[in-house]
Amino acid sequence: MSRDIQALISQMTLEEKAGMCSGLDFWRLKGVERLGIPSIMVTDGPHGLRKQQGSSDHLGLFDSVPATCFPSAAGMASSWDRELIGSVGVALGEECQAEEVAVLLGPGANIKRSPLCGRNFEYFSEDPYLSSEMAASHINGVQSQGVGTSLKHFAVNNQEHRRMSVDAVVDERTLREIYLASFEGAVRKAQPWTVMSSYNKVNGTYASENEFLLTRILKEEWGHEGIVVTDWGANNERVDGLAAGNELEMPGNGGFGDRKIVEAVRGGKLSEEALDRAVARLLELIFKTVDGKRVNAVYDKDAHHALARKVAGESMVLLKNENSLLPLSRGGKLAVIGAFAEKPRFQGGGSSHINPTKLDNPLEEIRKLAGDSAAVAYAQGYSLDSDDADAALIQEAKNVASAADVAIVFAGLPDRYESEGYDRTHLRMPANQEQLIEAVAGAQGNTVVVLMNGSPIVMPWLGQVKSVLEAYLGGQAVGGAVADLLFGETNPSGKLAETFPEKLSDNPSFLFFPGEEDRVEYREGIFVGYRYYDSKQVKPLFPFGHGLSYTTFDYSDLQLGSDRLSDADTLEVRATVRNAGSRAGKEVVQLYVRDAESTVIRPAKELKGFAKVELQPGESKTVTFVLDKRSFAYYNEKLGDWHVETGDFEILIGRSSADIVLSGTVRVESTVALPLEVHRNSLLGDLMNDPRTAPMVSGLLQQFQAGMGVGSGESEAPDGMGDMMAAMMKYMPLRNLVAFSQGAFSDEMLDGLIAQLNQGR
Amino acid sequence: MSRDIQALISQMTLEEKAGMCSGLDFWRLKGVERLGIPSIMVTDGPHGLRKQQGSSDHLGLFDSVPATCFPSAAGMASSWDRELIGSVGVALGEECQAEEVAVLLGPGANIKRSPLCGRNFEYFSEDPYLSSEMAASHINGVQSQGVGTSLKHFAVNNQEHRRMSVDAVVDERTLREIYLASFEGAVRKAQPWTVMSSYNKVNGTYASENEFLLTRILKEEWGHEGIVVTDWGANNERVDGLAAGNELEMPGNGGFGDRKIVEAVRGGKLSEEALDRAVARLLELIFKTVDGKRVNAVYDKDAHHALARKVAGESMVLLKNENSLLPLSRGGKLAVIGAFAEKPRFQGGGSSHINPTKLDNPLEEIRKLAGDSAAVAYAQGYSLDSDDADAALIQEAKNVASAADVAIVFAGLPDRYESEGYDRTHLRMPANQEQLIEAVAGAQGNTVVVLMNGSPIVMPWLGQVKSVLEAYLGGQAVGGAVADLLFGETNPSGKLAETFPEKLSDNPSFLFFPGEEDRVEYREGIFVGYRYYDSKQVKPLFPFGHGLSYTTFDYSDLQLGSDRLSDADTLEVRATVRNAGSRAGKEVVQLYVRDAESTVIRPAKELKGFAKVELQPGESKTVTFVLDKRSFAYYNEKLGDWHVETGDFEILIGRSSADIVLSGTVRVESTVALPLEVHRNSLLGDLMNDPRTAPMVSGLLQQFQAGMGVGSGESEAPDGMGDMMAAMMKYMPLRNLVAFSQGAFSDEMLDGLIAQLNQGR
Repeated sequence: MSRDIQALISQMTLEEKAGMCSGLDFWRLKGVERLGIPSIMVTDGPHGLRKQQGSSDHLGLFDSVPATCFPSAAGMASSWDRELIGSVGVALGEECQAEEVAVLLGPGANIKRSPLCGRNFEYFSEDPYLSSEMAASHINGVQSQGVGTSLKHFAVNNQEHRRMSVDAVVDERTLREIYLASFEGAVRKAQPWTVMSSYNKVNGTYASENEFLLTRILKEEWGHEGIVVTDWGANNERVDGLAAGNELEMPGNGGFGDRKIVEAVRGGKLSEEALDRAVARLLELIFKTVDGKRVNAVYDKDAHHALARKVAGESMVLLKNENSLLPLSRGGKLAVIGAFAEKPRFQGGGSSHINPTKLDNPLEEIRKLAGDSAAVAYAQGYSLDSDDADAALIQEAKNVASAADVAIVFAGLPDRYESEGYDRTHLRMPANQEQLIEAVAGAQGNTVVVLMNGSPIVMPWLGQVKSVLEAYLGGQAVGGAVADLLFGETNPSGKLAETFPEKLSDNPSFLFFPGEEDRVEYREGIFVGYRYYDSKQVKPLFPFGHGLSYTTFDYSDLQLGSDRLSDADTLEVRATVRNAGSRAGKEVVQLYVRDAESTVIRPAKELKGFAKVELQPGESKTVTFVLDKRSFAYYNEKLGDWHVETGDFEILIGRSSADIVLSGTVRVESTVALPLEVHRNSLLGDLMNDPRTAPMVSGLLQQFQAGMGVGSGESEAPDGMGDMMAAMMKYMPLRNLVAFSQGAFSDEMLDGLIAQLNQGR
Repeated sequence: MSRDIQALISQMTLEEKAGMCSGLDFWRLKGVERLGIPSIMVTDGPHGLRKQQGSSDHLGLFDSVPATCFPSAAGMASSWDRELIGSVGVALGEECQAEEVAVLLGPGANIKRSPLCGRNFEYFSEDPYLSSEMAASHINGVQSQGVGTSLKHFAVNNQEHRRMSVDAVVDERTLREIYLASFEGAVRKAQPWTVMSSYNKVNGTYASENEFLLTRILKEEWGHEGIVVTDWGANNERVDGLAAGNELEMPGNGGFGDRKIVEAVRGGKLSEEALDRAVARLLELIFKTVDGKRVNAVYDKDAHHALARKVAGESMVLLKNENSLLPLSRGGKLAVIGAFAEKPRFQGGGSSHINPTKLDNPLEEIRKLAGDSAAVAYAQGYSLDSDDADAALIQEAKNVASAADVAIVFAGLPDRYESEGYDRTHLRMPANQEQLIEAVAGAQGNTVVVLMNGSPIVMPWLGQVKSVLEAYLGGQAVGGAVADLLFGETNPSGKLAETFPEKLSDNPSFLFFPGEEDRVEYREGIFVGYRYYDSKQVKPLFPFGHGLSYTTFDYSDLQLGSDRLSDADTLEVRATVRNAGSRAGKEVVQLYVRDAESTVIRPAKELKGFAKVELQPGESKTVTFVLDKRSFAYYNEKLGDWHVETGDFEILIGRSSADIVLSGTVRVESTVALPLEVHRNSLLGDLMNDPRTAPMVSGLLQQFQAGMGVGSGESEAPDGMGDMMAAMMKYMPLRNLVAFSQGAFSDEMLDGLIAQLNQGR
């Protein structure tokens, strides 16, 4: 419906306008009844609705209306399936419509800098491209239903430790290539109706009042058309926030912030135009949700549960499967072990905590699929409330395991191990679970471990078990999905969206995480996740992109559309994948780009494309990727832009970041010449390398070397000292023509030379 | 002799004074004849004199008068022997006297940040304490002979790549704890008559005009009384340099710089007082060298050669010695292989390159010591001019090796592989040498490798040989010293002063070395060398402090003078070492301190003491260390001072950084309270932890939690969410008392509260 927003604003009092810029209460925006502006409701997400009933607690963390709990983002991203994530978004949008929720607070696109971050389960990946693709699909799905999203937490909110005061110190290139890129793709591709500013500071300024992030980058560079809402309690100085581009403060604050805005406008510290621009964006959001609203909407709980099961099945990652122990055949003797089998961990703690419409029990689902002729025994193995091993429970588990053909141990992280609000300090599972796995593996050679956890763990027991299935936090249908995978009803197709390190100290942020006092320095820079493990040649436990299947895939026929292009062109890349096994399956084809030689620091490789393909046994498909400038570029801070350095790039197609199966080379030529300014400290070697200055400098150099007696035959350089002399020349600044001339070459002559060199350009 | 420097200065013209601030030519300072101020000469070092004869080349790199070539610093530091290094200093001083050299340009105290740095062979260590102790001993030795030194290259000059233009970007804590600490100890303990400012920039400003480094830290904080001289050609803007505390520009520049100084004084840009202060320091230096000068001094070349042999023997490090293959018994059949056996690499390229008084040949020295009944065969094995393997040379080597009882392969880095002027790009030896070692080891089970190199190499062949002796660049007596060690005339006692990594990418600076364009970021911070390998749990090839002996040492009886002290006290630490073998030997007892729990980022351990003790078989000695505040402190940038955080510290005594044999714990209490300023973004948890604010905040908190319904019984936190609620409270800034109060708590009330909290202090 078309409305005259400007006319509406002109009818509003200053107080009404200021009032629009903060919430009515915890979950609702203010309306203006006399002008027909309704109050709309927003609700926590992202993998399900957490709509509060009444106001049972102010922070609003406990109790909510039942909603479908889909796998959390860590799992969903492991599907690497844009369409599937989109379908989850659609389902979430339908539930919002049914619950009269206008905006769902999610998805979260923060990068997994450290596996310790307590909220990693809510985030997609360590890779910005994968993360932004997942986020865009989620947003497009939800918003296709007339419901808004809130892309969060913008930005550089990569830890829970001191999250409301910590200053994330990160260089701009890293910001652009890693932390912002994850949001950028989602904003450009999906235009989330709202973006949520995070609690932390970024380079000294709170995200909620960071004009560089909120206005210059988000609104101006990326063209975000929606509003920015603070994370709940992230507002620092309201007027600064509003001026920086943060339109909405949440939750409602009793009018304190509104009064400050009014005072600032009256006192001339904030222009009324700035306030009007904010209100216009807020009204556009409100009416967009009004227009999108469906009357008497309902959703199909069973269909959504079925979708949750399908999504979970595609999200789980088969990490190890020695001797093809999985899939299990039906009808055998199974030992199902571990408290998680009866009481699965299927979601994380905090604002994303859902009241599910139903909850599958893995043990029951295994029994269902195992068939009537099967014998499925169960042992609890450990208590979830303690880390201490219980000898009786372990003995029982060993007995059950040794009497079966196969033991399936459910293990992982209890709620208290990872949550919004605080970070982990280590990567271990509780000791009782580790001991249980070792005990069971000792009693039963065919042991499968099913992991329920939101982020990586170390696996000191890995060598003792045959199979490991990473179920992540699989949502309310986790039980059915695990059963599907164990028995081959679903062929595993998940791939890790993050590196599992051998040990915590291998992580690139380890030495400087979570910082000192209120300062955390991102010293590893762009070397996040596999960018670090690859470049530093640190072998991970399981690499980024890794995931097994019950079938195998062959790769062939890499075709590059060209072997030479400019950075204004695009490159088409094709590769053929064939299901070489006897079972239908899906493969995630991954495309990485490597800058073969570069004068700037670059990672060993970077993900620039992926596609999930489904293949029947023997079937082949050709996958096509299109690469553009951004696929080859790094962020050049001096240019303030993305830049491709002319040279060769390798196009790598892999099953994972560590398993590259096809590769080709393309030369990309830059269309942008970097500026060269000659000054007193320009190096002779650089000037010799630049065609604009080389001719003039080369004559000069011969003269100078002769003057220094080098190469004059008077004395010969001994023992390879010729190399040193060459290096000294290369690295010599122009100013030393004066210093080493013994009076023959003056500063004035140098100034003249520099002027000439600069003119020569 | 006492002179009235001020009276002299008052007699000098402005031009004469300015003239004192730059050299007369490449190696001499200016004098003023009419005032009896002589021209003095300085000469390159540091491990021998490189006095130019005449002016055969202007840069002065080739040809010099014969002088004793001692092992380069990389080797000398491996002796960990203060007294020995002091005796080398004395010998160097004697040679300076004989050659009428007033100041020897050395030692170099730069930290080995990357093993790639081309000049690492001239530097002592990756550890600032060890480096500063070695430098101080060297300086004290030289200066005891009435000859000056030049502690170089000040500062943060840790690479040759673009050394004259690169900006070393390093945080102040790292600067203080690592890069400056290496100089600080030497300045405080030994007062070098001159300090040499380096070529590079430090945090944006050339070292030669860096007031923070030259005046605030070096002169004011450390109390340096001598002058600062530029590295040759390091001057950028002469007047800025002089104003910053750089008294002398070298080499002479034909008067350009002097004229600028005169103009600056005349134009009021530089005060004449500043110039006078510089001239006073210069005159004091000149007259100190005049007073120290010995007439007709000579030195005993043979005695110095013998000292060089002794020092080399104590500097070499026995890295591996399987089955005690070494020492060799005399009279057997030996195969000596490798061109370095006849033409040893005994020094590095560049300004430290010496014309030795004589040069031992390892092969000959081995023949001498092996005895008449021995059969010593030789094969060249490889050519030093090429990296390509020569099949005939290798075959000859195999033949010789297989016919012997033991093969001794001399290998290492040719001159062209490492030099002043450029950095290495990898850690490999030439391919022909690696292939030779593998071939010889294949033909002869008892293979010893003797390495001649200035910095670490990788050793893919390590598992195939029994013994490895790291000879570094052993000086002119390297041949005799190697023979002494091989036959047990000398018992090896060297310990690595640097980590040998498994592979280059393990090095902490790897990802960011040598930087981009003219900027290198020291992102690894304080985690240099073993501080990194220990903290990151990266296993090195050979750890810092490692070195084997032909005997064994037992450690016992660690005694701490106290189990609790204040940071104003000192702690005496004693440990007993016993020679448990049957051969006299020397052991380097190493003391490391570990901060057991800290709120700031600290390395796993840091070297804070060492002592070299000589023990006869069965003999015991007790070693005493004294630790002070600095042994426990980190540099606190906010305080602008060293600070000890109250808590437990572990005192670790080890054979190496990786082989800790004794440990104890001491509690150190700080006498300095860190300032606490309460503001809007102070965290509730921090205020609760501080006894000055806890009582007031705790009452407030209960009120607030009740207001939020937490713990009210209305709704219970599910699944460990209690932990999250606690964390949220802990990390909540005061400002959110307003935001979450729903209007009950105003900004004004918050301001009042903050004022009260600040008064409570």
